[in-house]
Amino acid sequence: MIRIDILSGVPALLESPLNYSIVGRAREKNLVDIHIHDLRDYSEDKHNKIDDYPYGGGAGMVLSAQPIFSCIEQLQSQREYDEIIFTAPGGVPFEQKHANELSIKKNIIFLCGHYKGVDQRVRDALITKEFSIGDYVLSGGELPALVMTDALVRLLPGVLGDAESSLTDSFQDENLLEGPVYTRPAEFKGMKVPDVLRSGDHKKVEKWKRDQSIKQTEERRPDLYENFKKKN
Amino acid sequence: MIRIDILSGVPALLESPLNYSIVGRAREKNLVDIHIHDLRDYSEDKHNKIDDYPYGGGAGMVLSAQPIFSCIEQLQSQREYDEIIFTAPGGVPFEQKHANELSIKKNIIFLCGHYKGVDQRVRDALITKEFSIGDYVLSGGELPALVMTDALVRLLPGVLGDAESSLTDSFQDENLLEGPVYTRPAEFKGMKVPDVLRSGDHKKVEKWKRDQSIKQTEERRPDLYENFKKKN
Repeated sequence: MIRIDILSGVPALLESPLNYSIVGRAREKNLVDIHIHDLRDYSEDKHNKIDDYPYGGGAGMVLSAQPIFSCIEQLQSQREYDEIIFTAPGGVPFEQKHANELSIKKNIIFLCGHYKGVDQRVRDALITKEFSIGDYVLSGGELPALVMTDALVRLLPGVLGDAESSLTDSFQDENLLEGPVYTRPAEFKGMKVPDVLRSGDHKKVEKWKRDQSIKQTEERRPDLYENFKKKN
Repeated sequence: MIRIDILSGVPALLESPLNYSIVGRAREKNLVDIHIHDLRDYSEDKHNKIDDYPYGGGAGMVLSAQPIFSCIEQLQSQREYDEIIFTAPGGVPFEQKHANELSIKKNIIFLCGHYKGVDQRVRDALITKEFSIGDYVLSGGELPALVMTDALVRLLPGVLGDAESSLTDSFQDENLLEGPVYTRPAEFKGMKVPDVLRSGDHKKVEKWKRDQSIKQTEERRPDLYENFKKKN
């Protein structure tokens, strides 16, 4: 079973997304083993401080090296970690292929960034990968760690039932966006479900879905569409 | 004060990230008014169902139109909404500029996607913007709604103190990544803080920081670096 250790200065923030929905159920079914660590518990400072002012001045506090080294060294004394991941705006843009890669690892640490960052010596000596989940600034690395955890947990064997299969997701296979979907009723506030979807003609339905998928990708994500055209 | 309404089929998942850290403190200080709505409360189905099988077959359940229309129509009867945002892999890639734009709105709704998506009639008739937070697949739109909420709340007046100023964040201003940062001690496990940062020479420090910032951007994000070079 894959083990994920998440290190944070705000561990309580991580709780509800790890306890509900697909990740929560995967934990209940023992398909993933997730541990949250409060960096304050590892601080040798008398006030359990975990951050300090940056050398050279500037706004924002920097996560100190000591609590992070202490926590990670303790974890490493118990097992070998495949990746120690830092969540930071300056990381490699996280994509589906990275979720796929992480989902076949055994032991992963996520270190959640905070405020203005983490002491560079942590990055130099401990971190094996830095990921950014997108080009926007967040209060800390907790949401990014939750996002990456969710993306990889749903790929683990047994986590999704057939009805939720991840095989036809956007960004898998052909990297096309999914087209429109409809459910009952056939008419709602005067808006009707396209006839083809109710025709029972599977070939026609599949063709319609694929055409819509290509159309949606062309309209919304010219970058993905260009890649798709090259391959087809 | 900006009001954010988040509609979800798994409302409990949203709780801890909205109650801690910067978003939690912003709510306590009445700088943002966030309301969570359970779509099940708006279902007219006798079992409070909020999803159903897709027309035309295929894996995954689709969020039904009725509970979403009922909830949004009730909210709209009470106030005018600037944006009704759907979180979906097929949306516009969410960037810092969108967080900036959203942070000056008055009333925003986030509809969290789920499973294989939402009945297209919701998108056609209600949704004003669709955002994706990145090219990876998640279990639902809850984490994306939390990510966008965090990104915009931290920009609201009074939310960040001077010490946490958002003005020097990555992706603001010049769109460069931040370079390395260090805090005490000056030496840790044999690794030293660069002399320049301890020199007290502000001009030198600023030049070093900017050079590092440019170097880090060039190495890690050639796309951002190209844009930077064009402007400089």
